[in-house]
Amino acid sequence: MATITKRSEDYSQWYLDIVHGAGLAENSDVRGCMVIKPHGYAIWEKMQRALDRMFKDTGHVNAYFPVFIPKSFLAREEEMAAGFAKECAVVTHYRLKAIPGKGVEVDPEARLTEELVVRPTSETIIWNTYRNWIQSYRDLPLLINQWCNVVRWEMRTRLFLRTAEFLWQEGHTAHASRQEAEEEAHRILEVYRSFAEDWMAMPVLTGPKSEGQKFPGAVYTLCIEALMQDGKALQAGTSHFLGQNFAKAFNVQFQNQTGQLEYAWATSWGVSTRLIGGLIMTHSDDAGLVLPPRLAPIHVVIVPIYRKDEERRAVLEAGHKLAERLRSLPLGPWLNYEPLSVKVDDREQYQPGYKFNEWELKGVPIRVELGPKDLAAQACVLARRDVPGKEGKVLGVPLEQAPERIMELLQTMQRDLLEKARRFRDQMTSEATSYEQFKELIADKGGFVWAHWDGTRETEERIAEETSATIRCIPFSRRKEPGKCILTGRPSQGMVVFAKAY
Amino acid sequence: MATITKRSEDYSQWYLDIVHGAGLAENSDVRGCMVIKPHGYAIWEKMQRALDRMFKDTGHVNAYFPVFIPKSFLAREEEMAAGFAKECAVVTHYRLKAIPGKGVEVDPEARLTEELVVRPTSETIIWNTYRNWIQSYRDLPLLINQWCNVVRWEMRTRLFLRTAEFLWQEGHTAHASRQEAEEEAHRILEVYRSFAEDWMAMPVLTGPKSEGQKFPGAVYTLCIEALMQDGKALQAGTSHFLGQNFAKAFNVQFQNQTGQLEYAWATSWGVSTRLIGGLIMTHSDDAGLVLPPRLAPIHVVIVPIYRKDEERRAVLEAGHKLAERLRSLPLGPWLNYEPLSVKVDDREQYQPGYKFNEWELKGVPIRVELGPKDLAAQACVLARRDVPGKEGKVLGVPLEQAPERIMELLQTMQRDLLEKARRFRDQMTSEATSYEQFKELIADKGGFVWAHWDGTRETEERIAEETSATIRCIPFSRRKEPGKCILTGRPSQGMVVFAKAY
Repeated sequence: MATITKRSEDYSQWYLDIVHGAGLAENSDVRGCMVIKPHGYAIWEKMQRALDRMFKDTGHVNAYFPVFIPKSFLAREEEMAAGFAKECAVVTHYRLKAIPGKGVEVDPEARLTEELVVRPTSETIIWNTYRNWIQSYRDLPLLINQWCNVVRWEMRTRLFLRTAEFLWQEGHTAHASRQEAEEEAHRILEVYRSFAEDWMAMPVLTGPKSEGQKFPGAVYTLCIEALMQDGKALQAGTSHFLGQNFAKAFNVQFQNQTGQLEYAWATSWGVSTRLIGGLIMTHSDDAGLVLPPRLAPIHVVIVPIYRKDEERRAVLEAGHKLAERLRSLPLGPWLNYEPLSVKVDDREQYQPGYKFNEWELKGVPIRVELGPKDLAAQACVLARRDVPGKEGKVLGVPLEQAPERIMELLQTMQRDLLEKARRFRDQMTSEATSYEQFKELIADKGGFVWAHWDGTRETEERIAEETSATIRCIPFSRRKEPGKCILTGRPSQGMVVFAKAY
Repeated sequence: MATITKRSEDYSQWYLDIVHGAGLAENSDVRGCMVIKPHGYAIWEKMQRALDRMFKDTGHVNAYFPVFIPKSFLAREEEMAAGFAKECAVVTHYRLKAIPGKGVEVDPEARLTEELVVRPTSETIIWNTYRNWIQSYRDLPLLINQWCNVVRWEMRTRLFLRTAEFLWQEGHTAHASRQEAEEEAHRILEVYRSFAEDWMAMPVLTGPKSEGQKFPGAVYTLCIEALMQDGKALQAGTSHFLGQNFAKAFNVQFQNQTGQLEYAWATSWGVSTRLIGGLIMTHSDDAGLVLPPRLAPIHVVIVPIYRKDEERRAVLEAGHKLAERLRSLPLGPWLNYEPLSVKVDDREQYQPGYKFNEWELKGVPIRVELGPKDLAAQACVLARRDVPGKEGKVLGVPLEQAPERIMELLQTMQRDLLEKARRFRDQMTSEATSYEQFKELIADKGGFVWAHWDGTRETEERIAEETSATIRCIPFSRRKEPGKCILTGRPSQGMVVFAKAY
């Protein structure tokens, strides 16, 4: 089994060790592209399912748009072109020639008249399509989401956090009024916040990005911003109010209730497989992955303990019986109407200790230990993944009551993980009143640092250059109180949150 | 509302009218790529969910592999290179340059050292990855599936049936023995057959393809083959036994139980959004889409009928009450543990007749009509989508019993649609004893034609050239009896099934 580097020794290596050791992902032989392995993909499926339900409950439907975007589409919205051109994979040909015994070559005669880019994001192709779908205010709102892969050519990649190809959802909505579109952008941000906190147990700040950090083509960008265990911030999801920028670029007009032509109002919003990176770095420890129960692909592992053959038979029988009872607990919204996923680890080639370590590494929330003595007492031992050692064990749980106790424990874990992450974030949140103090905090302690800022892009850029910290969020929760910018001394409307970020 | 061309007048146009009119898909401005619209995508989601459960119930897990494949990977397996090279989209550059005011250009300095193709299928990249995953027989079997988009550059496209980009699932399994891999290929074919018949209500022939029709790189290809209403066949799913071809091409060896190195045995299998085309062409009629209830995004639409305001209020209240009762029926495997999807059409701008037509066009299986007279009798009218006119109506259904009656009706419809399609296929299945008769049958009647064939590729190709009919399947169900090839008179082991195909 893989050994895990300690967080305190080498945080980056610890992260990679968990991603590899828990079987979540690995680099492929295609530069920058990852393979998402079954255990990692199972987490993504849980995330998808929960988010998809939340999108549908707020009136959205799914659709699918082409993976290719004509080069000229990208050029229509200048900010978007400037923002994404540098990282586009470009398709120039549509045919190879197989040369027997010599491999394959690009067929020079199959050159496209217009190059296609592999979508880095789909505003352009979607708004080009919406032009035909939107004629009247009766056609609005359009509330459409898409689950797909996107490609942004990255030079420095890191599994889940920054890869050339990643999986995501992108919502693209069209509205008859500015107000309705802005409400939508905020509604989705709340969906993201709720998903991050209630499912991922990952506390987030919410609020707009600064001008310098917004999405290319947006009027403003709202974000959820999380803090990782090394004190670096992670942008975990964004919801953009796009104004009429894309409607104008693609000439999407509708007849309003008074018969006049107007450009439609837009939002777009997305979260990606990056969330898996955030999940890992929020909860995991030196023994491996820690998963909040609501997103765990396996909730409970039952490890039989025995010496003799007849013990094995009895213990396994009881284990499978308990598993069946757990799997048939009534389905509810807490696990998205899916049954508890329970594994009985009946492999003979491994000792219990090895199995304990392996399931800890993989982040299974609850381990049930079941040996002959337990069985004699009609009881079992429950062990929580998030509390190491004896403290996390509940001894002598009557088998009869085990399903109920396990459900309670899962719910407690879910709450505790969020609370623990919140406490960590609070400890790692500081306030700087001078630039000296700010630089020290960013360099030594890390974490979120509140500070006054004069609101200009120049100041933000200079701070970023000098400290590597950027404005992560202008939290909705901030106190609006006048102050002086830590760098320039110019007036500020209130503090914003800085951090080094992934 | 869209008008639908009659099948008897112009079958191709009828198909397109339904795809457009029911809001399933449309062509995009990217050559050959379609936009799957919300109603079409909702059908795909239903298909995915049912299939995904069947895959998981047979021990498979999902994962995700890169969208890009290095050109040289494709060349490693010669048949595959020859089969797919001609339809590959090729990425040659990884950057554009935005030129302010002038759009974007490909940056000539950002040329890839090795071109990448957008995956047309993923055997090569996956077996390149499996090399690191498979060392010992203990690592086997690997039973992995992936849901993704693929690109095969097609010159003549048709929505859902043949598009440059499509969505699909591709399973890729690795086994320690030939027998186990062959069993897997057959197991998946049975999953596909069961999905086609039990969910899509689309009867299929099952059996191997001829050598001439097999997948490039396979030892043999098993298929499910359906018959459309115009008498043309549709290959609806394939399951390939790949032997050790890819293990050898990518050097995937494992240590077997006796300590010797062996190449792993492989299968791959897939179904795609093409199934939506098959679904449409199996059941739909001149009024629009007809959907088998198990795959319908909306199962029941309740259309209120009223003249006066107070009637409207009462009728809508009763409609919503009924909808709630329907939605809270217990979840079961028949609808994949999802609730009934029920719509109350309370739009005021349309008359009931218009609404009837619209929901018929969209394929909603059951319409509930609810007017003041019905309400006075505490009853409603149920109308089946698959039986037009009065015959499909059940009058005076007591509201109290409506949920039960609706569930029964949905199940009856599901059965009836399969039976109807089976009867149609049987009527359209013939046997030819001479080549003259064969040519006549293919040209005039269409459908499946059983005939003796000498087993050679040359004969198959000549028949295809002269009649446009290909061997669709060598059905498992065929009688093994000697005969003479209709073309050459040479001996045959048994008849095979020919047809013109999509």
